[in-house]
Amino acid sequence: MARETVYFDKQPKITAVSTIAGQKEKSGPISEFIDEFMDDDRFNEDTFEKAECKMLSHIIGKVVEKKNLPLGEVDALIAGDLLNQIISSSFAARNYSFPYIGVYSACSTMSESMIIGSLLLNGGHMENVICATGSHFSTAERQYRYPLELGSTRPPQSQWTVTGAGACLLSNNEEDIDYPKIVSATFGKVIDYGVTDANNMGAAMAPACADTIVTHLKNTKTKPTDYNLIVTGDLGVLGSRIVKDLVWEKGYDMNSNHVDCGEMIYNICEEEFQGGSGAGCSAVVFNSFFYKKLLQKRYDRILFLATGALLSSVSSQQGESIPCISHAVEIKR
Amino acid sequence: MARETVYFDKQPKITAVSTIAGQKEKSGPISEFIDEFMDDDRFNEDTFEKAECKMLSHIIGKVVEKKNLPLGEVDALIAGDLLNQIISSSFAARNYSFPYIGVYSACSTMSESMIIGSLLLNGGHMENVICATGSHFSTAERQYRYPLELGSTRPPQSQWTVTGAGACLLSNNEEDIDYPKIVSATFGKVIDYGVTDANNMGAAMAPACADTIVTHLKNTKTKPTDYNLIVTGDLGVLGSRIVKDLVWEKGYDMNSNHVDCGEMIYNICEEEFQGGSGAGCSAVVFNSFFYKKLLQKRYDRILFLATGALLSSVSSQQGESIPCISHAVEIKR
Repeated sequence: MARETVYFDKQPKITAVSTIAGQKEKSGPISEFIDEFMDDDRFNEDTFEKAECKMLSHIIGKVVEKKNLPLGEVDALIAGDLLNQIISSSFAARNYSFPYIGVYSACSTMSESMIIGSLLLNGGHMENVICATGSHFSTAERQYRYPLELGSTRPPQSQWTVTGAGACLLSNNEEDIDYPKIVSATFGKVIDYGVTDANNMGAAMAPACADTIVTHLKNTKTKPTDYNLIVTGDLGVLGSRIVKDLVWEKGYDMNSNHVDCGEMIYNICEEEFQGGSGAGCSAVVFNSFFYKKLLQKRYDRILFLATGALLSSVSSQQGESIPCISHAVEIKR
Repeated sequence: MARETVYFDKQPKITAVSTIAGQKEKSGPISEFIDEFMDDDRFNEDTFEKAECKMLSHIIGKVVEKKNLPLGEVDALIAGDLLNQIISSSFAARNYSFPYIGVYSACSTMSESMIIGSLLLNGGHMENVICATGSHFSTAERQYRYPLELGSTRPPQSQWTVTGAGACLLSNNEEDIDYPKIVSATFGKVIDYGVTDANNMGAAMAPACADTIVTHLKNTKTKPTDYNLIVTGDLGVLGSRIVKDLVWEKGYDMNSNHVDCGEMIYNICEEEFQGGSGAGCSAVVFNSFFYKKLLQKRYDRILFLATGALLSSVSSQQGESIPCISHAVEIKR
């Protein structure tokens, strides 16, 4: 039936983006593309959780400002994050008076929110929607793993949760022509190969990501070389190797044009091990580096797949493995 | 601009429903409409969390079975729940091989998922989608409030989290004509009147619910009496009084045709105080009692608003008040 893939004939445009990140991301290789950096990880708030919320609230305001849009013209905010009950997104939404659609897809939130936004625009229901997500090293670490004060040793298969947030504005106004556009998308399935190590997200997420890539290629009758790049969210170094192998096993070769946001955001040294992760990873990298390259027409077709691990600390404590998901968005210039 | 309200010209049909609940709900006034009951709250699982997941997985299978649909014909599952990282929904989705769209809107999940499902059907992208959510007294209590073993005294403003889950199948096949149909919906905004008592959900959620009701009535140019009923999710006894007052202040009188699922699910005695709550409350009541009444043409137009409190235990501990939301779905026969 192949209805995992949805096509947007009205081609919603990505008309503005906004990103913010921390000092660690500032010293990474793509920092020149990121809009703003926080001086410290608390962002002048009492707690890291409140800082994460403030980052989201901040970039939502900024993306509207960049497009020069009155706040009343924003039809909806679609957002989610990694914190329990996605409080960063919901509390950020409280600062604005537009309709709010909360989503949860772990680190795959950026692409899920872009698909739901595209559905609203393509159906002619709305004209301007904001898609946003973010993450924070300190909130994620203490929620999913150990208290920060414990100073736990990080194993070599681990990734570093990105402190940062990204938002994009999808619009379908008549004057919005010369922008990157979303032409199709493929919803992911929940896939679990039985990985139980909450430090090895890349290996856990790679099978779900590979499944969505292969599904999208099959449904759209395309091959990897039809895209300038296939961009995955936060598989990291190890996960990227695995996803390429898994896709290759299905008869597709994406060795020459696959990149992973988790491999791009840091100068990977010992501390980061496998690279970046977190909902903020793909949100920051896509809405900074990739958006600019699309705008400059350096790329004219990319497949963007944020990747999410759907575990919780409770599911891990109860002995469960890690189910994962990845939603794909095809963007053309 | 009034783009909070979306209209579905293809009118997605609700072609099947499925519900399950616990023994406490079995002794309530609408139990004859609920499909199945668990013999015990653990549902033959090790933990309450796994039982909650099993309930969801069970009703997803049942709703497909009721419609006599091959599993391969299901185009997507849209689900969410109250547990951290919506693990009940994600782990339930793992048991099926269809695309999964995770949402989080606390106890407003039932209506949010129905709106997203309607968008997919109305846009012609998909033909059969399942919307599902649930909750469990024991998982919610220990996650949001106190360990069960503590035997905390419940204050008089508290509600009882429903142990139960509900799913509906939205379809747009040509042969699906004589079913309740979703004609429009209004997305809610995040509204916070400063309530900080995590036991007083009804009072916290009423303003958000009132806002969505008034917005929907204004945008659709209707008045409360145009509907057989305005059905709210889980405001409980106190919250129901407040929402009627707030709506009345805006010039609408819904005293004669408002009902609340939280007031309907239990024979309200001392233990339940203000009535039922939880994502499962509106999911069970809508997909049992109201669906049957719509099917029997007892009602021909209802406005259904699940209501959600977007707090987490961390946000409460950090001194935050409770932001709330409510999404509305208009259903016609």
